[in-house]
Amino acid sequence: MKVQGQACTAIWPAPEGDAVFAIDQRLLPHRLAVLRLGTAEAAAAAIRDMAVRGAPLIGATAAWGLALQARAAADDAALQSMAAQLEATRPTAVNLAWALRRMLECLLPLPVANRAAAAWDEARCIADEDVACNEAIGSHGAALILEAAQRLRRRVNVLTHCNAGWLATVDWGTALAPIYKARDAGVDLHVWVDETRPRNQGASLTAWELGQEGIAHTVIADNTGGHLMQQGRVDFVIVGCDRVTRRGDVCNKIGTYLKALAARDNGVPFYVAMPMSTLDRALADGLREITIEERSARELTHVTGLGPDEAMVEVRLTPAESPALNLGFDVTPARLVTALITERGVVPANEASLEALR
Amino acid sequence: MKVQGQACTAIWPAPEGDAVFAIDQRLLPHRLAVLRLGTAEAAAAAIRDMAVRGAPLIGATAAWGLALQARAAADDAALQSMAAQLEATRPTAVNLAWALRRMLECLLPLPVANRAAAAWDEARCIADEDVACNEAIGSHGAALILEAAQRLRRRVNVLTHCNAGWLATVDWGTALAPIYKARDAGVDLHVWVDETRPRNQGASLTAWELGQEGIAHTVIADNTGGHLMQQGRVDFVIVGCDRVTRRGDVCNKIGTYLKALAARDNGVPFYVAMPMSTLDRALADGLREITIEERSARELTHVTGLGPDEAMVEVRLTPAESPALNLGFDVTPARLVTALITERGVVPANEASLEALR
Repeated sequence: MKVQGQACTAIWPAPEGDAVFAIDQRLLPHRLAVLRLGTAEAAAAAIRDMAVRGAPLIGATAAWGLALQARAAADDAALQSMAAQLEATRPTAVNLAWALRRMLECLLPLPVANRAAAAWDEARCIADEDVACNEAIGSHGAALILEAAQRLRRRVNVLTHCNAGWLATVDWGTALAPIYKARDAGVDLHVWVDETRPRNQGASLTAWELGQEGIAHTVIADNTGGHLMQQGRVDFVIVGCDRVTRRGDVCNKIGTYLKALAARDNGVPFYVAMPMSTLDRALADGLREITIEERSARELTHVTGLGPDEAMVEVRLTPAESPALNLGFDVTPARLVTALITERGVVPANEASLEALR
Repeated sequence: MKVQGQACTAIWPAPEGDAVFAIDQRLLPHRLAVLRLGTAEAAAAAIRDMAVRGAPLIGATAAWGLALQARAAADDAALQSMAAQLEATRPTAVNLAWALRRMLECLLPLPVANRAAAAWDEARCIADEDVACNEAIGSHGAALILEAAQRLRRRVNVLTHCNAGWLATVDWGTALAPIYKARDAGVDLHVWVDETRPRNQGASLTAWELGQEGIAHTVIADNTGGHLMQQGRVDFVIVGCDRVTRRGDVCNKIGTYLKALAARDNGVPFYVAMPMSTLDRALADGLREITIEERSARELTHVTGLGPDEAMVEVRLTPAESPALNLGFDVTPARLVTALITERGVVPANEASLEALR
């Protein structure tokens, strides 16, 4: 998608094949900076420190990371150890483990001497497939929005939580891909952007993405979506996901469940954009079986933004003595999900439908 | 309640009778500063600029404001004009109009010469009644918590949204009064404190209040409460209210509705602490009839906190070009409210029960 009018992706390989470049998302929306990741360790750090985030982008970054490892040392032990290190950077996103497993399955059968080149190709392939996958999600989801626009005969209001845009993937995004595709098809759209505390990915990343693409949007506090739905000001909710169980329970950014409840209470369709790679068939009951990542309390007690003199400044919000709990994700039960938008089509969130996609 | 171990109220009259003092809540939790309000205009500004906030405290501040007006000029025109000015400072809180009407009904029948003294007494009376009212709410609510503690035989976890503590009233608070009273009765309690975006009253005021009183608490993002309820980590929700219709629809801080939905979905009792002065019998359907205050977008796009060098610093969170919408309140339909905790007892949120309280 576009940055300052130029086509851009969230991660891309250096032409020399010795590094990958990624947008440092910690500085957005205030500054556009690009990180050069020259080693697997640098890729792991970029994931751990959330310079890159979003389940599909984490997967792609880990794949490139393992490809960088294969350049340095490609024996089984080196690759397996680095894969374990990369997988440990974030606990929730299923794509991370998926991409690493795919890389290892591709590389380990090969002679060590061939692994570096093969790894580079396989990582590029994962990234390219991600783009194609998200574009397909976009097309399937756009059809739903188009249908709503034709029925409503006015501007369509979509609400989204967190950032499941192209910054969370390689390009297009998951939840935002249908919005970009619908816009391309001429639908008049407006997006309610949940701020998404505590890391503010909506306020900083989704708002920035939509602004760069010229799509009408309004940032709201996470508390606001329920009221807007009560007032008929939301036609659609579309969110991304970090992990979906075989029964269709959706693990996504904390707060998603509250929006799903409000959508149900107000008859607003609640869609989850789900690349098939996010489906975890090993899990059934998301509420019992998914481990929720607990992150540093400081992400909640402090906020970083653009201060006076255009400098990035961190300020404290809470009393110094008050503890805080920062859970990254929640689980929306399948019963609250209208449908899953996958690259293979739109399906109900239940075991039979997901099994049929095998 | 206590500040640095000393008993304190949110507003109190100067012994000389020529001003009132109020804690400047905009600087909490980082700094404790006291405002001297020497004129009605200063009282109006304190309400408008949210140096004082919370429906009952706004009512008390407006009453003292009109008493200060009566010292300066007590003729009908002066009092009525200032009452209108005070009432226009905030649109949602019903106590504001209630307190001003009560002051005018007390003062206008009196000879002008007697009004200043009578106004001072009446404002003090409103403040004293608020304290007694909240203490009664505390006792009624504490009985519910005590009952839960005896049933659960472990620490009771209460979730609250925004600040309906003593800082929102004159003393005790509404939603927090049951917590203070239950603590006094020996109940082992822990409070989940919703940060309460965009103004962060939970993170700054509720956390500070509870910390000053030594009550165990944890600050969470507003997005987190639903997940905690799914995990059985919330036994009780208690919130305050800004306006309640005769059918029991509750207008309170934006985001309250989402917590009520989650409470319902997880079988968690959802209580609303409601001084009778907050009941607006003129309204029936809260969703249709209550005007929701829209506040400055800057409260959402920017955050003020304690920066480096212990200075208060404002930082921007969103892209400069992205619009934002800041709605202050939402309406929780009566069907989601387990009961209203009033100074006259605990009652179901429906028209018959509220009518019986006349």
